[in-house]
Amino acid sequence: MRVQDVGEFGLIDRLARRVGQHGADVVVGLGDDTAVVRSPERRGTYLLLTCDVQVEGVHFSVDSIDPVRLGRRLAAINLSDVAAMGGTPRYFLLSLAMPQDTEVSFLEGLYDGLRQEAEPLGTMIVGGNVTRNAILILDAFLLGEVRPDELLLRSGAQVGDRVLVTGRLGASRAGLALLRGEARGLAAEVREALLEAHLAPRARVREGRSLAGSRGVTAMIDLSDGLASDVGHLCQASNVGVRIWAETLPVDAATSLAARASGSDQLAWALHGGEDYELCFTAPPGKVKQLSQAVLEATGTPLTVVGEILPPEQGLLLAGPDGRDNPLQPAGWDHLARRQAADPS
Amino acid sequence: MRVQDVGEFGLIDRLARRVGQHGADVVVGLGDDTAVVRSPERRGTYLLLTCDVQVEGVHFSVDSIDPVRLGRRLAAINLSDVAAMGGTPRYFLLSLAMPQDTEVSFLEGLYDGLRQEAEPLGTMIVGGNVTRNAILILDAFLLGEVRPDELLLRSGAQVGDRVLVTGRLGASRAGLALLRGEARGLAAEVREALLEAHLAPRARVREGRSLAGSRGVTAMIDLSDGLASDVGHLCQASNVGVRIWAETLPVDAATSLAARASGSDQLAWALHGGEDYELCFTAPPGKVKQLSQAVLEATGTPLTVVGEILPPEQGLLLAGPDGRDNPLQPAGWDHLARRQAADPS
Repeated sequence: MRVQDVGEFGLIDRLARRVGQHGADVVVGLGDDTAVVRSPERRGTYLLLTCDVQVEGVHFSVDSIDPVRLGRRLAAINLSDVAAMGGTPRYFLLSLAMPQDTEVSFLEGLYDGLRQEAEPLGTMIVGGNVTRNAILILDAFLLGEVRPDELLLRSGAQVGDRVLVTGRLGASRAGLALLRGEARGLAAEVREALLEAHLAPRARVREGRSLAGSRGVTAMIDLSDGLASDVGHLCQASNVGVRIWAETLPVDAATSLAARASGSDQLAWALHGGEDYELCFTAPPGKVKQLSQAVLEATGTPLTVVGEILPPEQGLLLAGPDGRDNPLQPAGWDHLARRQAADPS
Repeated sequence: MRVQDVGEFGLIDRLARRVGQHGADVVVGLGDDTAVVRSPERRGTYLLLTCDVQVEGVHFSVDSIDPVRLGRRLAAINLSDVAAMGGTPRYFLLSLAMPQDTEVSFLEGLYDGLRQEAEPLGTMIVGGNVTRNAILILDAFLLGEVRPDELLLRSGAQVGDRVLVTGRLGASRAGLALLRGEARGLAAEVREALLEAHLAPRARVREGRSLAGSRGVTAMIDLSDGLASDVGHLCQASNVGVRIWAETLPVDAATSLAARASGSDQLAWALHGGEDYELCFTAPPGKVKQLSQAVLEATGTPLTVVGEILPPEQGLLLAGPDGRDNPLQPAGWDHLARRQAADPS
């Protein structure tokens, strides 16, 4: 069944059935001019607003992607932004632009995937919009909240702080290599883990809440463009420099295997691969042990110290395996520029 | 200057300069993982969430539209949805997907237009997102608020209520006729007024607030698809029927002139033209005079009684100039169906 067969209102009815039961805080979900939600009752709570888009042909291919995974991915990208503020995600709006011959089941799968990521966090889809377009565009808007004393910004890193990351780096890039057919001969469970990391990354919402509640974190960002690029954003906002220690970067065994199988450099994947959606944050050295224990106990996710904050005049450095400093090149993709930001040409 | 010349971060910097100074309620605007805004302080305030998209080739043409007007239009479409709930708009996020050769000045004009509509209402742009796409897509998200006792839903219309609209109907459709070259020989000021109505309609936010504060309104919706279609949505949500009185529909002189010049039926424009972004609401007959005075004094906008609410079994009726009832056909455009919803074929 295609979108043109059910029409705009038929489609909205069908999608409304995928968003599930609303809690008591949702006064009106889909079906009126706007969604209506109860405001957080605690005085002085901050609201967090973010949006992120996935475009067919740029971020995904309709022919090859599983719609449920695409929905999970769209959820995760937005949830990760709220996680990076130390916040709690609350309400999604989903704006869809699509060709009229889009399969309705594809869109329903998308909603199911979004719910799979959102519901366990208490986050609900409360509205959205559908319109026509030559290609499929998915734009999600997420409203979250945070206590003012738990808000974690990109600014705030102090000279001497350690730089930490959650989880592991480069796995999403390894999954991309598999999709491109660059890494062959890997075991099925290795392939599946890496494809999942790329196609349906998991936002570190609980880890972000744990870090925010533990105090001691001075600045935080999520890793969408790659560690080298994103830690650069954090340093710029904090007006500091950084030294990343190449040998400490957490790369898991599956990613190492894929890098070897494809003749790629796993360090480059960990630094520049992007789309890992791990959290990167800074904290004084004396807080590292306490934070690591708190996050591990609350979520099961390990933290790794990957560098140190320097005075701003030292810039952005990468200490290689030989111990020597090199410039840390932000090779993350600039979505709109003529070429990659770090292209040396 | 094109987007590819300044890159993603250069573009974000430039656009951030167009969003203006934030008030004290905006803790973080553009530049971190999410925008951070202070939650409304009054206990029990409801938050209103809405989004609406404008797609190049579907809703506008880059070659012919003034970007400032396009920004104003994008603002108005979303502001109108919050107005239709009786709410106060607060924060915009703007999500842009664009070709790399998009003129930066076009995007800056877009932001300027959005601000022109938003700022006088105390509404701010606090964030957004940019990405690549073959065509330009503008997706705006708007967060508003409303006191629970002032919330106006589509449901709530009672048998015997009068149906009212703000302002005038059909002017946007008349402006479209001018753009299509269907109505020639009109005076410059007539042309300009109708083009403005189509290209940059004004949301009835103050009117909506006045109606919400005056009490007595039982249901409300904004007119995006056309009166016939939208009053049908209101009746469906309220489980009632309606009789619209054709002779009462407020059509201004400029629209009448354009209808005559193009050989079109001004009644059809008023019923089905769409995109007027007036408010349509219901109220008991005894409240009509008080509401009309309150809105006129607060905003200068006239209200017109255009029909009456009937029991549901009477359905949706249009009383013609001869006094006879005919079915009220919802001929609003279904954006996704194979053909227009009311196509009788």
